Amino acid sequence: MVALTGGLTAGAEKRHSEDVKAEVTMTPMSQAPASFLERLSARWSGHHTLLCVGLDPDPARLPRPLIGRPRALFEFCRDIVESTADLACAFKTQEAYFCANRAQDQLEEIIRYIHQHHPGVPVILDGKVGDIGPTAEQYAKEAFERYRADAVTLSPLMGFDSIEPFLRHPHHGAFLLCRTSNAGGSQLQMLDVGGERLFERIARLTVTEWNLNGQVGLVVGATYPTELARVRQIAPDLPLLVPGIGAQGGDIDATLAAGLDTAGAGLVINSSRAILYAGSGESFALEARAAAVETRDRIEAARERLVALSSDRE
Amino acid sequence: MVALTGGLTAGAEKRHSEDVKAEVTMTPMSQAPASFLERLSARWSGHHTLLCVGLDPDPARLPRPLIGRPRALFEFCRDIVESTADLACAFKTQEAYFCANRAQDQLEEIIRYIHQHHPGVPVILDGKVGDIGPTAEQYAKEAFERYRADAVTLSPLMGFDSIEPFLRHPHHGAFLLCRTSNAGGSQLQMLDVGGERLFERIARLTVTEWNLNGQVGLVVGATYPTELARVRQIAPDLPLLVPGIGAQGGDIDATLAAGLDTAGAGLVINSSRAILYAGSGESFALEARAAAVETRDRIEAARERLVALSSDRE
Repeated sequence: MVALTGGLTAGAEKRHSEDVKAEVTMTPMSQAPASFLERLSARWSGHHTLLCVGLDPDPARLPRPLIGRPRALFEFCRDIVESTADLACAFKTQEAYFCANRAQDQLEEIIRYIHQHHPGVPVILDGKVGDIGPTAEQYAKEAFERYRADAVTLSPLMGFDSIEPFLRHPHHGAFLLCRTSNAGGSQLQMLDVGGERLFERIARLTVTEWNLNGQVGLVVGATYPTELARVRQIAPDLPLLVPGIGAQGGDIDATLAAGLDTAGAGLVINSSRAILYAGSGESFALEARAAAVETRDRIEAARERLVALSSDRE
Repeated sequence: MVALTGGLTAGAEKRHSEDVKAEVTMTPMSQAPASFLERLSARWSGHHTLLCVGLDPDPARLPRPLIGRPRALFEFCRDIVESTADLACAFKTQEAYFCANRAQDQLEEIIRYIHQHHPGVPVILDGKVGDIGPTAEQYAKEAFERYRADAVTLSPLMGFDSIEPFLRHPHHGAFLLCRTSNAGGSQLQMLDVGGERLFERIARLTVTEWNLNGQVGLVVGATYPTELARVRQIAPDLPLLVPGIGAQGGDIDATLAAGLDTAGAGLVINSSRAILYAGSGESFALEARAAAVETRDRIEAARERLVALSSDRE
């Protein structure tokens, strides 16, 4: 049985968001497991969470205390990180919010901050890039050397040529778009490609040809639990990054029932807006924490129920 | 008959790359046609060129005079722009090279430079992004407001949801990945999706559903002329961005025969490395110009031959 540390921490008593600190177990860098999947697994099992907190800082939706501050995107993300790091199996930074607003330096800074203060929590850089040859090598350099992300999201439309350059970084991971959470995703991903759908082919190619060294996972939306179950069937051991709960309406119970692996883990369930924008005033970080606690707890409750059910059957 | 202004210009006499200037027709901003496609068409017909010069400045391949300079990526691109602007129907900037090297400001600067000094030549920002909702809006803001690109490349794997936010910018364009120039592109793009291949479906969806206002084109590699011809058949009027000549080995004659539209245009034939790295010493800009002239001339010769053939048949 998992001891959930839900509710607000000592930081709840502090008024200013900058001072909010969550209870976080610090792990020295030297103890960090070697591969991205090992680092993820350590969070899934050791910290009892499948929740990924998405850092998509929209300048138009900043909490009031941060509006007008020169490094508002970094400060916003830092406060969210401090409020949620103990609840997160990973953070996912969406680069568009930083790049559109001339704030790549703040993206570098928040990832550095996470590594320094919460070294056990891997960071996924969400850019969904897909290119080949020297250009793909530059994208890998950007993600892993400049930003020091632990993993990336990639679009596999250009095939393995666009994935392989990222796999040359053995300690890092890559999640490939497979069945995305949006309705329009069906236009290509649900096409029948000869006995199976395109998203199933992507999952199958990943398992049989592309995942050379256990570095690759798939992106499958929580809004399509039937397809999520199908991907889990094809790829029983792959980590799945699952957007679509929260603002997009995906159901947590259905997601876990469809997507848990045989070890009762294997999911990186992302929530961005429902946590980031839970509050908009002085106490935004505490409200973000409360939303993250609630989501993490609902996920863990469903997880424990399903794992117990599965043990009963054995 | 087209009067080709090939060969080296007055700039050839100057030793320093910074001083290299090509003969360029300056068009005031106010005279620029309204839509991206109109701006492209003006280059195709008025300047007799289908050549797109790709600006992919790899720090490891800089010409010797620029090595170690703090704004080397901008200066390199600027010198290439000055050497080739009169030969180009467009420039294509690959953002990975700037982003990986903390040089987004230099990407902004080179696009601003092109607009100021060569306002008739549109700039395509090559990022191949594909995302939805508020994130896609941020990517559109990045491309069209921050960088002031005229068009982008997009990956359509997430469907129209990932394209539509860009089409809200009516003066701008978007090229969707359709049949890419790399061998690995076949893994998904050549799948039979029920009587046609995935790349054909992308072309068909673009023509029938996605190209609401004449803003959308397709990316089709010169390395696959048969598929290029097929795309031209499905999409007789769409502008096609064609990578894969030069370093990747695509054949110019075959590309033109397969891809020209009925007006003898419709192609944006990109060459990056073969032009950028034609020389590596003091005269790199002149050597780049010579490579661009040769490519432009070969394209124009094939174009004139094909247009003449086509008139003979009428």
